[in-house]
Amino acid sequence: MPELRKDPIINRWVIIATERARRPSDYIHHHSAEHLEKPVSCSFCPGKEHETPPEVMAYRQAGTRPDTPGWWIRAVPNKFPALSPAMSDFNRKGHGMYDMMNGVGVHEVIIETPDHNLTIAQMPIRQVQEILWAYRDRFLDLMTDQRIRYILIFKNHGASAGASLSHPHSQLIATPIVPRRVAEELEGSRAYYNFKERCVFCDVITQELLLKERIILENNNFIAIQPFAARFPFETWIIPKRHSATYHNIDKNQIMDLALILKGTLAKLYKALDDPPFNYILHTAPFPRWDEYGSFYHWHIEIMPRLTLVAGFEWGTGMYINPTPPEVAANELAKIEVEI
Amino acid sequence: MPELRKDPIINRWVIIATERARRPSDYIHHHSAEHLEKPVSCSFCPGKEHETPPEVMAYRQAGTRPDTPGWWIRAVPNKFPALSPAMSDFNRKGHGMYDMMNGVGVHEVIIETPDHNLTIAQMPIRQVQEILWAYRDRFLDLMTDQRIRYILIFKNHGASAGASLSHPHSQLIATPIVPRRVAEELEGSRAYYNFKERCVFCDVITQELLLKERIILENNNFIAIQPFAARFPFETWIIPKRHSATYHNIDKNQIMDLALILKGTLAKLYKALDDPPFNYILHTAPFPRWDEYGSFYHWHIEIMPRLTLVAGFEWGTGMYINPTPPEVAANELAKIEVEI
Repeated sequence: MPELRKDPIINRWVIIATERARRPSDYIHHHSAEHLEKPVSCSFCPGKEHETPPEVMAYRQAGTRPDTPGWWIRAVPNKFPALSPAMSDFNRKGHGMYDMMNGVGVHEVIIETPDHNLTIAQMPIRQVQEILWAYRDRFLDLMTDQRIRYILIFKNHGASAGASLSHPHSQLIATPIVPRRVAEELEGSRAYYNFKERCVFCDVITQELLLKERIILENNNFIAIQPFAARFPFETWIIPKRHSATYHNIDKNQIMDLALILKGTLAKLYKALDDPPFNYILHTAPFPRWDEYGSFYHWHIEIMPRLTLVAGFEWGTGMYINPTPPEVAANELAKIEVEI
Repeated sequence: MPELRKDPIINRWVIIATERARRPSDYIHHHSAEHLEKPVSCSFCPGKEHETPPEVMAYRQAGTRPDTPGWWIRAVPNKFPALSPAMSDFNRKGHGMYDMMNGVGVHEVIIETPDHNLTIAQMPIRQVQEILWAYRDRFLDLMTDQRIRYILIFKNHGASAGASLSHPHSQLIATPIVPRRVAEELEGSRAYYNFKERCVFCDVITQELLLKERIILENNNFIAIQPFAARFPFETWIIPKRHSATYHNIDKNQIMDLALILKGTLAKLYKALDDPPFNYILHTAPFPRWDEYGSFYHWHIEIMPRLTLVAGFEWGTGMYINPTPPEVAANELAKIEVEI
């Protein structure tokens, strides 16, 4: 049963996987970040549905049975979950001076396509829309669980970005606490709102549209920019123009425009950087009282190509060194033409 | 001239290296974290002193001239500094809604030994002591610079831990602001002190000595533990038993014991994990009013083997998933015998 432990100094929660503890020999010869399992057969491919836990949701052809082929999007529990929905009780408790609780939560995989080799940068726009609908549907389902405070949807692409399987997939982790990184963003945008009486993300959109230095793509509903204080080379944020704290209220027009700008951005990064490893993270407001954040928080997606290494300086300071100014990156990406 | 830019939402500072901007082609085929430059000759080896900027400090044989052989520890400015001491003025300013300042600071390399292949895990204990004295001497020199608020000493060992040169060295970066990661630790330990009227690190030492579950080494002046909420497999903290907020007040007995426990810990990690990549970070109080933190802060060293990848979940939440419980890691490391 996974355990959540809190660092007593900076109140950082850590998930300790107590059941399948890895020992030193498991790490030797796995130092390389590029080590990616190349299974003989892929559990996420059609026909291998029995190799995953039973699906919790699928978009599939009428008449096909669950956990058989015929799907085009499939969500399944992670086979090795970091958090488990099985426990009904958090059992928050002390352990001497320390604090801990049961690792209650949800960890799912959203398989984005039956095609093992088709990433978002290349797939038909209709399929990208389906992925985005699937994200929304998982929110709508899981936000009814009263134990859940936050739902994080993210994607690891490429071995050095943490992907252990190459079949295109996203992950969802629902946590019983509001993670500190999320709390920091809420605090920051609340402080800005208290001072300015405006949403900081709305102000960023206005500023970027005025300066036109860091925009890489734009459509009716979204803008894709290199942020002013980008941590990483080619870090890209996709921000909805219409103010909203939560992803799950997205509508059909927005899904269509988000699919276009997400595919367009990933296709530009693919072309400019030769299929770079990357993470993207959907930032949205916590549950269940998401309407509390309605005035000052603004959902968005952060895409982080993994081209530089985070090392001692970043760990020690929380600051970052970015060797590619975002204006330079924006200029490079803006001029790359891609077919959508 | 490097620029410091502040993220408008979570007030995170980023160093933008504006002068030697890297373009997309610089990143292609460098995706692998294991890419390590293997120069024909090493600039940090004796006889190559002219290939580095002039030394700012060296421990060297009597009668030898600066920037010639005869040294056993040598500190030089980083050839490609992330921050520069050349600017006298921060020039804090707005840029539309954004905030920025000049990248004022210091970035040095501390070459730990003339021997290209001798890491701390193997070198004579006397040389480890010299490295620790050099850290102290750099603090004492740089803390007189009124522009500096924080001095970070850290070490990247191995390519996937961010080392770009294999000759054993540490780095020092002095920043004009107190980094957020440091501020969080200060806030956390202050909050604990306000509640308990005790130092949280002192309490951790007492707790760990009582439980004896996570100790890997101990001597008169130091304890080496796997922390209760370890982020990473085999993460190890070395904490001085005597309460002190700052490293630079360390005395001779402590240096001798710290050399023993640092070498012992790194030798155990080397043996258990086959020379793993790692970062270590010296955590100490900010300047110039370090005595403000005297009651509640406690300097220490955090060693983080880089065996797992930080990916979307960690970036999105600030939480970590650790597949090796610290008790398991401590048990493995404690039983490994090393010669010191």
